[in-house]
Order: sequence, then structure tokens, then C-alpha cells
Amino acid sequence: MNWRRKVMTSQQLTNWLKQRTYLTPDRIALISDKREYTFKELWTMTIEMASKIHSHVKESQSEFIGLMIKNTVESVTVIHAVQQLGLTAVLLNHRLSPSELAFQIEDMNLSAVILDDEFYEKLQNQPIQKVTLSGLHKATPSTFEIKGHFQLDQVCSVMYTSGTTGAPKGVLQTYGNHWWSAIGSSLNLGTSENDTWLCSVPLFHISGYSILMRSVIYGMSVRLFEHFDVERINRELKSGSITIMSAVSNMLQRMLKDLGDESYHGNFRCMLLGGGPAPLPLLEICRDKEIPVFQTYGMTETSSQIVTLSPEYSLSKLGSAGKPLFPSELKIKKETRPAAAYEEGEILVKGPNVTIGYYKREGANQKSFEDGWLSTGDIGYVDDEGFLFVLDRRSDLIISGGENVYPAEIESMLASHKEIEDVGVAGISSDEWGQVPCAFIVKGTMSLLNGKDVLSFCKKNLASYKQPKKIVFVDEIPRNASNKILRRVLRERWEQGVYRDEH
Amino acid sequence: MNWRRKVMTSQQLTNWLKQRTYLTPDRIALISDKREYTFKELWTMTIEMASKIHSHVKESQSEFIGLMIKNTVESVTVIHAVQQLGLTAVLLNHRLSPSELAFQIEDMNLSAVILDDEFYEKLQNQPIQKVTLSGLHKATPSTFEIKGHFQLDQVCSVMYTSGTTGAPKGVLQTYGNHWWSAIGSSLNLGTSENDTWLCSVPLFHISGYSILMRSVIYGMSVRLFEHFDVERINRELKSGSITIMSAVSNMLQRMLKDLGDESYHGNFRCMLLGGGPAPLPLLEICRDKEIPVFQTYGMTETSSQIVTLSPEYSLSKLGSAGKPLFPSELKIKKETRPAAAYEEGEILVKGPNVTIGYYKREGANQKSFEDGWLSTGDIGYVDDEGFLFVLDRRSDLIISGGENVYPAEIESMLASHKEIEDVGVAGISSDEWGQVPCAFIVKGTMSLLNGKDVLSFCKKNLASYKQPKKIVFVDEIPRNASNKILRRVLRERWEQGVYRDEH
Repeated sequence: MNWRRKVMTSQQLTNWLKQRTYLTPDRIALISDKREYTFKELWTMTIEMASKIHSHVKESQSEFIGLMIKNTVESVTVIHAVQQLGLTAVLLNHRLSPSELAFQIEDMNLSAVILDDEFYEKLQNQPIQKVTLSGLHKATPSTFEIKGHFQLDQVCSVMYTSGTTGAPKGVLQTYGNHWWSAIGSSLNLGTSENDTWLCSVPLFHISGYSILMRSVIYGMSVRLFEHFDVERINRELKSGSITIMSAVSNMLQRMLKDLGDESYHGNFRCMLLGGGPAPLPLLEICRDKEIPVFQTYGMTETSSQIVTLSPEYSLSKLGSAGKPLFPSELKIKKETRPAAAYEEGEILVKGPNVTIGYYKREGANQKSFEDGWLSTGDIGYVDDEGFLFVLDRRSDLIISGGENVYPAEIESMLASHKEIEDVGVAGISSDEWGQVPCAFIVKGTMSLLNGKDVLSFCKKNLASYKQPKKIVFVDEIPRNASNKILRRVLRERWEQGVYRDEH
Repeated sequence: MNWRRKVMTSQQLTNWLKQRTYLTPDRIALISDKREYTFKELWTMTIEMASKIHSHVKESQSEFIGLMIKNTVESVTVIHAVQQLGLTAVLLNHRLSPSELAFQIEDMNLSAVILDDEFYEKLQNQPIQKVTLSGLHKATPSTFEIKGHFQLDQVCSVMYTSGTTGAPKGVLQTYGNHWWSAIGSSLNLGTSENDTWLCSVPLFHISGYSILMRSVIYGMSVRLFEHFDVERINRELKSGSITIMSAVSNMLQRMLKDLGDESYHGNFRCMLLGGGPAPLPLLEICRDKEIPVFQTYGMTETSSQIVTLSPEYSLSKLGSAGKPLFPSELKIKKETRPAAAYEEGEILVKGPNVTIGYYKREGANQKSFEDGWLSTGDIGYVDDEGFLFVLDRRSDLIISGGENVYPAEIESMLASHKEIEDVGVAGISSDEWGQVPCAFIVKGTMSLLNGKDVLSFCKKNLASYKQPKKIVFVDEIPRNASNKILRRVLRERWEQGVYRDEH
């Protein structure tokens, strides 16, 4: 059609933090334990940080730079500084072992890592440039050119998948991925200039990183916590200073316990609950206490949420993860065909927030992506109104005597027991059934609970094939950075004889 | 870089109304004088309308279809139906004369127009297929394929520029333009599931059309008014049923007059005020009455607002149009160089909401677009904090004895006079000065105001060279569909002797 001019589709956007600072310099960007920072102050600190990082890494040819940071104001400036320098941040999880870190550093071929001084030891033997925060303080700033725009197809960050299954893979997240993730979330949750989002989830994880991106895109305050401090967080939620918070079930459970008979301030409008299927009893308590829980489903590959339960359905669809964000799509695949309503199958997602792929993993990319759809490896179904119910990780699915057994369902039931503090369920080998469920339980400090008690509790509440055939008491349930239960680790520890058989 | 997978940038999004209906079927989409419609109902009506339109136009080869509609529920379904059919709507202004309409129909080479029955006469002599709404009621539906996605670079709508200057040109607005316009607005004004946007501006104009797009993208209710009914609109704003409204100065002035000593409900959070620079006295009254006015600057070419004054600056920057929306940019050009702060020049804008161009106007496209920047033809300046102050249309600028005189400034001053109902100022030829300002005034019904009174009022308040040299009393000020003053028409009427010289 000859009348069409060359279409300039939007492949770039204004430099986010720069634009935000121009638009609303005096709004509060960040609140730490000690003080508040406006966007203008954040911008100044970021540029200073960037010019110091630049003086350290300007000789480097690599577009990647490792980050090993805590949830501090300084880390926030490091994250923004790396964006301002046009580098791609590789977010390293400081909870990993030296050998796990070595794998990622090698895999990304990193030449430098910016790190909090206290993590120095973990990287001691790595043949890379270690740029500590204290070293940066002393650095002489080196000027660099501030970009006017961000390219949406440029890779902004790399995060290794949490590794509930298989070998870790670097997930490439573009500026466009982060942008659309923030926009999709805003169209669902709404935005207000009065919002303050509490971030106690790790900044090196997509749950925390995405809060920073929303902050600059919306012009929203972030209340940053270095640790998940239940009492202080509850105090803020009761005071009315917080409107939104990201959490996972385990965190929420601890918060409710501390909250007791009290309730949160009316300003608190959204508890964004991710990190795997939430136990029904937990959701019911929140309903009774009028805590506005938005169940959500997402992963590193979707740059945070992709499916969230809209406010108006939080009660009628209790237990559902909801529907896709406006720009995204969802379908369930049963073998090679689309599943019918209520039919279980693998969850597939699509949308502009979905990663462009795993770094240097051609095999995984070919396996996981088809026609823009990402195979999540999770199992679920969609009801007749299109609401998603996530059942479990496919790799955690227990097939016992031909029956599908979902660990999350058993965990949810066991979590409702008053004397059980935390619980994980995994499949272990069985000559008779192929696999049987085994429950790993952390009991309350004063509890006298024994294996038989638990088994009889299960008998009352679960079909025979779902009842754990073994009960193992443990000190803690292994979880990844986003607090998802590492059922694979439970299984491995069991097989290696780390745990004692209680029943 | 060989590790990069082919980047799938987002060139398509889910079919908006379909996705919105899937996500929140029971939310209220539309409220008329008579009843409310959920998104599910709107979807059903839209598909029915589309299948009836399809039966009329399926033989047509044209991708364009004319629309000549009023602000009714049925018109809303027509607008959505045309999107569902994958056609491009050419929005015809029913206030135009038959010959003006003939020009646009010819220019777009339209073969069919969907029209409200009462406009039939205006198109009587046009050699095109006239599909009346009553005809559609009787049509037999014809099935068509519902698209899963909208292509962002596809042209969604065409609107002719209001024509304050020169010959009318068809502005091409893509789905992407409308999308980014809605997103930019949401990042500035915020969104809430409790929002209801009052639309009494025309649906065939970008101010009204864009409200419908926001509605489906945000999941927001629209309260539709067929006419600008001051009393009933004020009643709704006082009752708390409305949170946002689009208006132009003239509308707001009438609303304030009717409002008297009363005030609006606390739910009312945004009066989006566009259509040209607002008179300062009007803004001051709003400030005193605590009416949250968001001054905004935009045009058909920017698919609605592109610069808006953020809430926190509504008082300190009274009179400014604000700063660009987050995805957009702004600059002032002085001859061939960028202007300094406070230096007047032409306003240039850029962003994903800016039109891809004028239909079949290679000359205008080459003149108006450079490197993605649109030359708006408006004059303004940016202060040292980056706030835009719009002075006037460049074509309306009066150059009097070498001095720049801005009609809007004089109008603003005159509008503060109690006995002046409406006013427009235009330059007329002068042997002595080249041009001199002439004030065209609509006086209050009971007013005994004469030209001398007005002149002495001007003498008190304006520099000598800005004082109108002629005062002309008229019955009404000519305005375009978006209520912008047509100063060119005032000038022409004066030159043609239509007006009587009062002074």
C-alpha cells in the first residue's frame, strides 16, 4: 500500500530513570530504614555510582557485569548505574555456594563482578575483577555519556532460573520485558501517585528487581527492607505507610502469626502473593482478616507476574492464580492438543514480558519456545471462565500407582495443622507404587507431634493414594531465593540418607 | 552476537475488547442515560453489530469505512465492531458541511459510510453506500472471523485535523498510537478499578475516541453523554459517580457558572482540560474551589494528550500544560536550533503515540516529520524545570509592529471580565502595524457592555501593543469539534464584512 509511510514502531523509550527524574524530581523514589530519597537524589547517586563503576570497567570489552548485592540503597543505585552505563547486569544470588557461583561466572564469561564487601570471600578463588562497594567509594569518577533512550530489545538483566529442576540457565530479560511486565501489572493492580511498594524480597531476584523497574516507570515509592523483618514490616503495614507488598506464602504465614488479632491499615491495598500455589487455609485466614491478597503466578522467564487474580475475584475464585495480565496470554497443553476446561496439562504462556530465551542454551530454547509460547514446566488447569489453577511443577509431580499426586495439595493440607510450622512434600521411590509421597515437616518449638499423629491427620483429610507414606521431621525446608520449596533437594537429601526416617 | 535469539518485539497485542471481556466480563464498561453495560454485554452487542456491518460491506475491497455517529451506546458498538472486522474507521465530523464531507469522502476514496439516520441528508448526494443504523438493525448477520490479535502498526482510525489552519488532512492513527496514548495517560493520571470517565466530548474526535480505548485497556467505566448537558453533568460530578472528565475551557467555564457556590464530590479526581491554553482566571477559580484540573496539551496527531501537568504541580505551575507523558518527548525549536529555557519557539513532540503521518500528503509529511519529531505548528516555551507553556498556534500569532502578540493571552485576560461570556482574538491587517489584534466578544445576555468599556478594560491590563485595536460584538465564537477557537474563521469573517465594526 503505497500511502503508508514507513512505520516507526516503538523500539526505544526514553531513559527511564532520567525521564522519571525530569517528570517528577521531588517524588519519593526510595525509603530505607534511615531516610527517604527523591527521584532527583536517586538520579544523582546513580550517576555518581555509574561514573565510579565506569572508571573500574571501562577497559573491559564485556557487555555483561556480575552483581552480588544485598537489599540496600547502594544496591539500588548499582542496578540503575549499570543500566545507565548500557551494560547488562548478571544478578548473582549471594546465597549460592562458591562452586555454583563459579558455574554462572564461567557460563556468562564474566570479567568483573560488583559485590558487597561481605561476599568477597565467596568469590575469592574466581579469576575475575572483584569491584567491592568500598572500593567504589574510593574510586575516581570517570565521565560517560548518558543515553537518551533505552532500546527495548536490548538485554537489561540476566538471572539464573531458580533451579527447582535441572541445571541453572541464564534467563535473558530485555528492557522491553521489564517494561511490559510493569505495564501489565499496572493495568491489573492500578496505579496511584500515593502508592508505596514494600520490597523485602531480594533485588537480585525478579520479584525485587521488578519493583525497582515499576518504581521508575510509575513514579512510585519503594520501601526497601534489607531483610524480611516480620515485626517491623507488620508495624508499617498497620501504620498505613504501605499500599502494596510482594510476598510468598511462607512470609505471609509468619506475618499473620505475628499479627495476631490485629489487622492492617485500610491504605494497604495489595498483598501480591507469588512463589507457588498458596495453601487454601492461608487464603481463608486472609479473607477473614480482610487482607487483600492477589494470588499471582510468574517466574524469572516472565519477568515477574504473568497471571494474577483480579480484585473482584479474590473471594469467589479463592485458590486460583487468576487470569493473564492484559498484554499476555495463557493456554493449557494436554500432550499435543489444547486442553479443555478443567483438564490438567502443562501451562504455556505468551506475551511481551516473556524472556527472549536462555543464554547459550539452544537445546532448552528449542524445547521451551514454540511460536512465541513458553512451556513453563508447570501443571495446571483453567476453569470454564478461564481462571488458572496451578497444581504443581511438572518435575515435582508424584506419580503413584498411576495416579497424579500434587505435593502442593498435600502441603496445603498439612500447613493447616496448628503444630506444623513448615512442610514440604516430595516423591520418593517405591517398589510397589513407583513413587510415593513423603512429607518433610518442621514442627513447632514446643510441639510433641510425632509421625503417627501426622499420618492419622492425613488419613482424615486425604484420599488414600495421596497420603504420605513417610513422615520425616526436619529442621528446615530448603527454599530457593524466591522462597519456593526445593522439592528436588528434599528428595536428594532423602536418597543420600541425610534425613532420619521417622516412620 | 550469536547468542541472541531472534528478538520477538511486540508488534501485536491481544484483541483488546476480547481480552478485556475475558479478564473482567462483569465490570461496567459503559453507562448511558438509561442503563449500565458490562464488558460482556458490550462484547455481545459489538459482535452482533460487526456481523451486521459485515453483511453490508463484505463485498467491498476497501479497508476504510466512514463513520458519522453521535455519542450513543450504539455508536460505541459501531466503533468496536469496525475494529473487530479489521477495518479502518474514518471518523467524519457530522458538524461539517456537505461539501466539506464530500472532500473527505473523496480524499479517502470511501465506498461506504455507516451513519446515524439523522445525518442521511448531509450525504444525500454522495455516490457512496450509506449504511444507516436503522438499516443495520434490519440486516441479517453475516459471520466473520474474530481476530485473536491487533497489529500495532495497523491503522485503526483516521481523523481529519480540526483545520484551525490550512486544508484538512487525514491523520492516520495506528493501534499502537492508541495503545501508547492510553498507557502514557495511565502512567500520569494513575488508574483504579473504581474509575468512571465522563465522556461528553465527541466520539468522532480523538478526545472521545481515546476514552473508549482507555476503557477497554484499563477495564474502566465510561459515562457517556450524548450532549454537553451542564446541569446533568454537574449533578453527576456532585454525586460522586464520576472520577475523571475530559473538558475544554469553554465547557468548564459553563460548568463553574452552573455550579455556583457548590463543589464537586471528593471522588472526582481529575478534570482533564485540553483544547488549547486555558485562561488563568478559570484555573484560579478551580484552584479556589479545589477542582483538580490537569491542564493538557495534545492534538489529533498525538492520539490525545502528550503533555500533561502532574497533580503535584497543578498549583505551583498554574497555566502550564506540564511535562510529556512518560513514553513521549518534547522540545522547542527556535529557527533551526533548540531553544533555551524560557525562549519561545515551535513545539516539537515525539513518541509512540504520535501519528505515522497524514494520508496521501507527502508534502505535509516531509514538512512535519523529521527524525520522528512532529512539528506541531504551536508556539510555546519550556521553563528551567522543563514545564511547557503553550502560547498559541503559530498560524494565529499576530505580529504587530514587529512584536509577537499571542491571541490566547488577550483572550485569557478578557475572559476574566464578568460581563464577557466568550471571546476570540485574531489579527487583522493594518497599514500602520502590519497586523493588529481584534477582539470578538460574546457579551452576557443582560450586559450593556460597549466597545469603549472593553478598550478601557484592556488599557488597564495589557501592554499597549497587545491592546485590541478593534472590538467586535458577535453572537458566538466559531469553534471546531474539539472546541478550539477558529481564529482563522474570525479573521475571514471580518475580512468578508460579515461582522459589523463596533469601534
